[in-house]
Amino acid sequence: MLKKERMNRVLEKAEQDQLLISDPCALFYLLGKWFYPGERFLGLLIGKDRKPVLFLNALFHYEEDPDTETVTFSDTDDLTAMLAEYTDHSKPLGVDKILPARFLLPMMEQKIASSFAIGSLAVDLARAIKDEEEIALMKKSSKINDQAMVLFKRLVHEGVTEREVADQTLDIYRSLGAEGFSFEPIVAFGANAADPHHMPDDTVVKEGDAVLFDVGCRYRGYCSDMTRTFFYKKGPSSEQEKIYNLVRRANEEAEAMLKPGVPLCDVDKKARDIITEGGYGEYFTHRLGHFIGVEDHEYGDVSAANPRLTEAGNIHSIEPGIYFPEILGCRIEDLVLITENGYEVLNHYPHDIEIID
Amino acid sequence: MLKKERMNRVLEKAEQDQLLISDPCALFYLLGKWFYPGERFLGLLIGKDRKPVLFLNALFHYEEDPDTETVTFSDTDDLTAMLAEYTDHSKPLGVDKILPARFLLPMMEQKIASSFAIGSLAVDLARAIKDEEEIALMKKSSKINDQAMVLFKRLVHEGVTEREVADQTLDIYRSLGAEGFSFEPIVAFGANAADPHHMPDDTVVKEGDAVLFDVGCRYRGYCSDMTRTFFYKKGPSSEQEKIYNLVRRANEEAEAMLKPGVPLCDVDKKARDIITEGGYGEYFTHRLGHFIGVEDHEYGDVSAANPRLTEAGNIHSIEPGIYFPEILGCRIEDLVLITENGYEVLNHYPHDIEIID
Repeated sequence: MLKKERMNRVLEKAEQDQLLISDPCALFYLLGKWFYPGERFLGLLIGKDRKPVLFLNALFHYEEDPDTETVTFSDTDDLTAMLAEYTDHSKPLGVDKILPARFLLPMMEQKIASSFAIGSLAVDLARAIKDEEEIALMKKSSKINDQAMVLFKRLVHEGVTEREVADQTLDIYRSLGAEGFSFEPIVAFGANAADPHHMPDDTVVKEGDAVLFDVGCRYRGYCSDMTRTFFYKKGPSSEQEKIYNLVRRANEEAEAMLKPGVPLCDVDKKARDIITEGGYGEYFTHRLGHFIGVEDHEYGDVSAANPRLTEAGNIHSIEPGIYFPEILGCRIEDLVLITENGYEVLNHYPHDIEIID
Repeated sequence: MLKKERMNRVLEKAEQDQLLISDPCALFYLLGKWFYPGERFLGLLIGKDRKPVLFLNALFHYEEDPDTETVTFSDTDDLTAMLAEYTDHSKPLGVDKILPARFLLPMMEQKIASSFAIGSLAVDLARAIKDEEEIALMKKSSKINDQAMVLFKRLVHEGVTEREVADQTLDIYRSLGAEGFSFEPIVAFGANAADPHHMPDDTVVKEGDAVLFDVGCRYRGYCSDMTRTFFYKKGPSSEQEKIYNLVRRANEEAEAMLKPGVPLCDVDKKARDIITEGGYGEYFTHRLGHFIGVEDHEYGDVSAANPRLTEAGNIHSIEPGIYFPEILGCRIEDLVLITENGYEVLNHYPHDIEIID
């Protein structure tokens, strides 16, 4: 069923009078239903003062919806001619940033609009500000993630590999009420924790290893994402402890400055300065955070390159890390919500140094 | 490392003098390496009498390759300006069918070529004819799939759900040497088998159910895909047996006519006529088969709409089915290779009616 308030917020932000939205995530946001079109065309045409039209392959189904006209087509229909009947040929058309060339080029050749531009930024900007329904689902998703972390660390024992641990996480998420992963879980032991892109392999845990979990689930479509770094059987060395505490302080002080109206680059700088002053700046090799919602990585990042101001309703990660191969790879990540007056951390799993026995 | 013979076959089939290939599957085919660019740009520019250029985000790595120039860029670089230095602005550029609008529109605005068209059909056509290396990998992948089917049927027992069975299949594939699924496995009990798009859920198996497995794995990048329909605890009724044997005959007679030079629509017709003459034509609701290789579904299908002729080196599925909700849902699928003189079925798991006890 069309979520009119969300559509109206998109249209307020749109630079074109007509938008053709194709991204299944954006359509879930606007219609509350997931479509899996694969290679097939999928589009929702919206505009000011017009009824939205959903173009849907006959293989898929959309409910009866008084606010939306549904046009079905088959694999052999002329898609461009069908779209041309509904677009205003005298006005620019904003298309989705992901619209594949095989659909876009025929639309341009057939001149179904006066010009073509990327129009999906309006959807991205609307999605960056979560409404009440979304905030409730995001909180629940992160709550499940907190509960799951307690169970995940118990999977680590003598002789176990990263992959064996990772393979058990999906069942745990499901048993807690999630429908699946928000991304493939990262489980990294020892030196592997110092590679932020490491994927679980056959590495066996050994005493003294860092044990890093970067994990998230999906609850009714909404994503969680949290990282914790534990130690196996043995507490950290003094340099490891120093690194861990720097990362922790970068996380907590960056979170503490959050409220509406803060430049996102300043949040990144806060965390980066702490790590740099601690002497490990060159080992913090990525941005501080990313926006999240229906997708694990959504439009908007917490980085030196983004001067935009935080707004109430934003939800993003704060995930400083230090990746020092010979000593320690460590990351501490929470999701945070910007509220009217400040912020709320959605993850409640503690930041303390913890030894898995 | 660039596979020059494959690239030359692509260029022979190309309608433009310069092609920009973005699809990670196509790049695996041409370079032998998987890239996971996510939302980031990835492109291989190839053309007659020019050295291929790989445009790669600095986050990713490509080996030293004397046959390919690699241009790396960062998230903040001007991608279009970079591409403009390498394309011939006076000639058309063939772009990948999947190239997203956010990359294509700026290239068109900056006129980095004289015109733009979909050029990736040349890659698709080259990929449809497997070389010796690919055939060997496809055979191995299907051999693993045959072995896995023996183990999958043993997972079905009193009280088990489709999802519980499906959840155990990945470990079995891995234990047999595959790296993962070629697609999410379909496990369907009873009436669910009559929905060709059914995904495993909490349905519990019961005596007399059809038990349908549509499954495949990936071996060194190459996909397998096979379907078998079993019966649980009890043999088929006479109408079920009639349906099963019609599907089996459609499969085997369609396979038996394969050799180079046969119109693919005729192969579909062969199977469809058998099922129609048997009285179930309206319950065979999809095409007979699809091409397969690096992707589970590749360019090329075995359907009424495709008059192209089979060629030696084609590998595609033959998968007739009858979906009669109250009686039986049944599909029997093999992969077949077109050889110089005939065909070879890559799956060796039998087609006989089999009862799981």
